[in-house]
Amino acid sequence: MKLIIIGANGTVGSATSNELGSRHDIIRVGKTSGDIQLDISQSGQIRELFARTGKVDGVVVAAGSVHFAPLAQMEEEHFHVGLNSKLMGQVNVAQIAQAYLQDGGSITLTSGVVGEMPIRMGASAAMVNAALEGFVRGAAIELPRGLRINVVSPGLLEESVAELGSFFPGFEAVSSKRVGLAYAKSVEGAQTGQVYTVR
Amino acid sequence: MKLIIIGANGTVGSATSNELGSRHDIIRVGKTSGDIQLDISQSGQIRELFARTGKVDGVVVAAGSVHFAPLAQMEEEHFHVGLNSKLMGQVNVAQIAQAYLQDGGSITLTSGVVGEMPIRMGASAAMVNAALEGFVRGAAIELPRGLRINVVSPGLLEESVAELGSFFPGFEAVSSKRVGLAYAKSVEGAQTGQVYTVR
Ligand SMILES: NC(=O)c1ccc[n+]([C@@H]2O[C@H](COP(=O)([O-])OP(=O)(O)OC[C@H]3O[C@@H](n4cnc5c(N)ncnc54)[C@H](OP(=O)(O)O)[C@@H]3O)[C@@H](O)[C@H]2O)c1
Ligand SMILES: NC(=O)c1ccc[n+]([C@@H]2O[C@H](COP(=O)([O-])OP(=O)(O)OC[C@H]3O[C@@H](n4cnc5c(N)ncnc54)[C@H](OP(=O)(O)O)[C@@H]3O)[C@@H](O)[C@H]2O)c1
Repeated sequence: MKLIIIGANGTVGSATSNELGSRHDIIRVGKTSGDIQLDISQSGQIRELFARTGKVDGVVVAAGSVHFAPLAQMEEEHFHVGLNSKLMGQVNVAQIAQAYLQDGGSITLTSGVVGEMPIRMGASAAMVNAALEGFVRGAAIELPRGLRINVVSPGLLEESVAELGSFFPGFEAVSSKRVGLAYAKSVEGAQTGQVYTVR
Repeated sequence: MKLIIIGANGTVGSATSNELGSRHDIIRVGKTSGDIQLDISQSGQIRELFARTGKVDGVVVAAGSVHFAPLAQMEEEHFHVGLNSKLMGQVNVAQIAQAYLQDGGSITLTSGVVGEMPIRMGASAAMVNAALEGFVRGAAIELPRGLRINVVSPGLLEESVAELGSFFPGFEAVSSKRVGLAYAKSVEGAQTGQVYTVR
């Protein structure tokens, strides 16, 4: 298959490209790295990406920012960071990708454990992650031509424990191998409208 | 208790004020009706509302718009209708209300069955409803002074079947009495971070 991975160079994206890279052609996309660069919060740049890649069999998004801060310090504009980047960035990829996907092709988005199990400073992340899961359930039933859409909800990756572990007290970290498998399940499997949790 | 109900004149808001109105002082807020008017998508107007009401024991929101359309016709700006109105309108109420709530006071937001069980044309509604539930889980663990926050997820109300029933094939409608009870559970009960589903 010909696959686009947005965020391929990141922690989650590397787990995904390590799993899928040996058996598929991967177009690696990043903000500054990879074969093609874009800012996912700019829908015009998403359109340019697909105009350059042409038809593909699947697109994976493992990119998108959210503002983390104590609830009392969260102003309206802080919520819009996650809405514009992690949420609408991924939704725009899903919407624009449809015209470029082969029949039966897949869209795989990324949420995260905080949508289900909150952490301090994570109200915006909880909102955005849950929103992505709602969107995927809603979009799946309307996609044409056997197109599929799923979302992977990774737990905290082992590779991220050194940087982020103190924000996730008592959370069991998950291996990048298991995270990669969840993306493979979405890309190479046959389901749609699913939330694949890795805990 | 002194309670604010935003959307008190609507289908869901009437169910809520019928249940709570006999035993509490209700300040009824609407876009054009009620004791006070505001547009929930304008955070400045939410600030003015609380400056006028002063301290309260609870605030209920049963208002907020979402754009319904076939997925293929959903442009980026259509998603922003729901993000700015039903989602951030309610989030802004929750954030601004905190300074005006008595200790132990409650915030009760409104999502809906589409977040869990999608319908055609409902991708944005699914996204926004799920987002509200994520936000409530995330915010609940950080609220000070025993403040509480919950969200009610009503099914299609019996009163709305004539107008909306054809969009909800096979969905069992719910009575306004049961919907009102769910809001009472949030306002008069002691839990926080909950999604009260009425199915
Ligand atoms: N790490 C975890 O434990 C974990 C757990 C659950 C969920 N997640 C979620 O997974 C997603 C990726 O996280 P990560 O930890 O893998 O992040 P990361 O290591 O910082 O990698 C982010 C990747 O996305 C790219 N990127 C960053 N901003 C972008 C933008 N505006 N437009 C396009 N690409 C952009 C980066 O490109 P460059 O390399 O070119 O800068 C990089 O390849 C996030 O949404 C995160 O919330 C992560
Ligand atoms: N009806 C259902 O079966 C059902 C089921 C599940 C979820 N819901 C959700 O519940 C919420 C209320 O729905 P509903 O059916 O009760 O709606 P509705 O009957 O149209 O009533 C809406 C109420 O909100 C007020 N309102 C509308 N736009 C507003 C704005 N921009 N700012 C402030 N107030 C505004 C209206 O004020 P005025 O009267 O002054 O115009 C009215 O009181 C919606 O978010 C809906 O998605 C409804």
